[in-house]
Amino acid sequence: MRLIILFGGASFEHEISIVSAITLKAKLSDVDLSFVFCDVDHKFYLIENAKMKAVTFSKGEHKKMPELSISHRGFTQKTMFSSVEHSGTVLNLIHGADGEDGTISALLDFFSIKYIGPRVDASVFSYDKRYTKWLCDAKNIKCLKHQIISSNEHYHINIPYPLIVKPTRLGSSIGVSIVKEESELDYALDVAFEYDSNVLLEPFMQGVKEYNLAGFMSKGEIYFSTIEEPQKNEFLDFEKKYMDFSRSKKVLKADIDDTLEAKLKNTFTKIYKNMFEGALIRCDFFVLNGEVFLNEINPIPGSMANYLFDDFKLSLEILSSSLPTTKRVKVNYDYIHSITQAKGK
Amino acid sequence: MRLIILFGGASFEHEISIVSAITLKAKLSDVDLSFVFCDVDHKFYLIENAKMKAVTFSKGEHKKMPELSISHRGFTQKTMFSSVEHSGTVLNLIHGADGEDGTISALLDFFSIKYIGPRVDASVFSYDKRYTKWLCDAKNIKCLKHQIISSNEHYHINIPYPLIVKPTRLGSSIGVSIVKEESELDYALDVAFEYDSNVLLEPFMQGVKEYNLAGFMSKGEIYFSTIEEPQKNEFLDFEKKYMDFSRSKKVLKADIDDTLEAKLKNTFTKIYKNMFEGALIRCDFFVLNGEVFLNEINPIPGSMANYLFDDFKLSLEILSSSLPTTKRVKVNYDYIHSITQAKGK
Repeated sequence: MRLIILFGGASFEHEISIVSAITLKAKLSDVDLSFVFCDVDHKFYLIENAKMKAVTFSKGEHKKMPELSISHRGFTQKTMFSSVEHSGTVLNLIHGADGEDGTISALLDFFSIKYIGPRVDASVFSYDKRYTKWLCDAKNIKCLKHQIISSNEHYHINIPYPLIVKPTRLGSSIGVSIVKEESELDYALDVAFEYDSNVLLEPFMQGVKEYNLAGFMSKGEIYFSTIEEPQKNEFLDFEKKYMDFSRSKKVLKADIDDTLEAKLKNTFTKIYKNMFEGALIRCDFFVLNGEVFLNEINPIPGSMANYLFDDFKLSLEILSSSLPTTKRVKVNYDYIHSITQAKGK
Repeated sequence: MRLIILFGGASFEHEISIVSAITLKAKLSDVDLSFVFCDVDHKFYLIENAKMKAVTFSKGEHKKMPELSISHRGFTQKTMFSSVEHSGTVLNLIHGADGEDGTISALLDFFSIKYIGPRVDASVFSYDKRYTKWLCDAKNIKCLKHQIISSNEHYHINIPYPLIVKPTRLGSSIGVSIVKEESELDYALDVAFEYDSNVLLEPFMQGVKEYNLAGFMSKGEIYFSTIEEPQKNEFLDFEKKYMDFSRSKKVLKADIDDTLEAKLKNTFTKIYKNMFEGALIRCDFFVLNGEVFLNEINPIPGSMANYLFDDFKLSLEILSSSLPTTKRVKVNYDYIHSITQAKGK
């Protein structure tokens, strides 16, 4: 397996994408890896494996490395008199904007580059929390009730306190607040509107059980990770979550019964099928009175949720062997011929 | 106004995109236009205005014209010793796949090129008829009941005859059949599955009134076109529709009362707002017992529905003056600095 790890991006999660990439370098030390960095100006750089350290990026040293352009079937590096092609399967590891909103997916699709990651449709439904709610309704999956507030309107809150405030389109807890009473609301909204023009409110579920499950599909079969009960804080703040992106140690299986395990896997399958093919995703669930609620879909989870898989490298190999491809259209110009002929008469 | 008309694409609607572009050349004869053709292999060519004729493409003569590459803020043409930049606002006129599925939108977004056309989210919700149904449910807009059939499963039809069979992701009536009785169903499904792995069934509404309304938003205000009652055949077959893409003569206003006009405009606004900003779209509606049902959203209508507007050129100018832009993210590497420092201790 040869993988090109694509990371960075013009996103609030740019830095955690760097951390994810560094983590995967260590985790996949026996894989043929190369690293392509997308900077905030959307320029691509080929990063030497030995330079895959945080300091390379914070000091701007990546700018001294070879610049690449994206082209048909790979990335191209111009040399003095010629050019070098870097091709292989791309692992899209850009978290947040660019990576998870469909932009990079469309770019890779357009240039016929094979990749691990969500396709455009799947990105739209997982990136924007409003559309995840629509997906839940359409697929008959339970989720928390919610309210959307747009910055430019007067609002009347119909979610009871305590509630949680989230920008609709960011992950990694950026801009997220728990609001215990009305007096704290304005500040929390101001913070969230810093990041997005739409904000989602949901009830904050105290004492609820949380479970994370990752997985992917290959040749029609779903491969599930271990189910984890994530460590609880009041909630994960950005710095805590940031460290989370560098996780590489295999977790312990959550202590749950077979019925709940089956329910979680069944809900995961309903979400995944006919939408997330090609991606390894992590779904974060709440469990309330034995019922499974979808909290969030992470279509490019931090460090690819490697710590949830018994054999992470093998998992990527299985997924890589069954990536979606687009059927190419043939055009024969029949209609144009018939018009031209009709005009000639 | 300077516009780059981008047309072609790897799509079953490749040829009608060429017809659309030729129509706009005539309609916008006093605008500074250039034409960029995307061929089925996703190569871009700059087409001389004088060569904007069907025969150029059917004879493959576009291959002799300058090849372009997409780059930051425009298209680049390499010359012997240097390169020429072609920049300006792009009018995305690629119908169907590539143009309407979010691919071209993402490409233009990534390279910071301003464009008229649907953004990625809007594309996903209008291109796939399944997701248009989800949008209707979420926005409380009426639409016909439907059933989805996937090629690889046994099906039990729960839509009464006569019904209409459509590939979920194609426009221009390609692969569409009216099925009057069960004996005709298998053939109609075979035809539709030629084009898509998912097929949508809906009741075929005999004698229903149809109305088309186009429009766009600029600086917070919606600009509506004339409402047309399209010419009725049993339905528009591809060749008839094909000719439709070359329309340029202004239509007559449909003979409807103010109440219905207000209902159609109100439904259009519900669909458009917070999703289709930047695009000029045409919505096709059914009216049944005074109730408005959404049939289809065309986010890049044939020849941009120019024939529905009193002053088409002015409409494009108004739209161009208010295109969405992306707020660029700044990265300061604070988190990476703090990690690096923590490690140094």
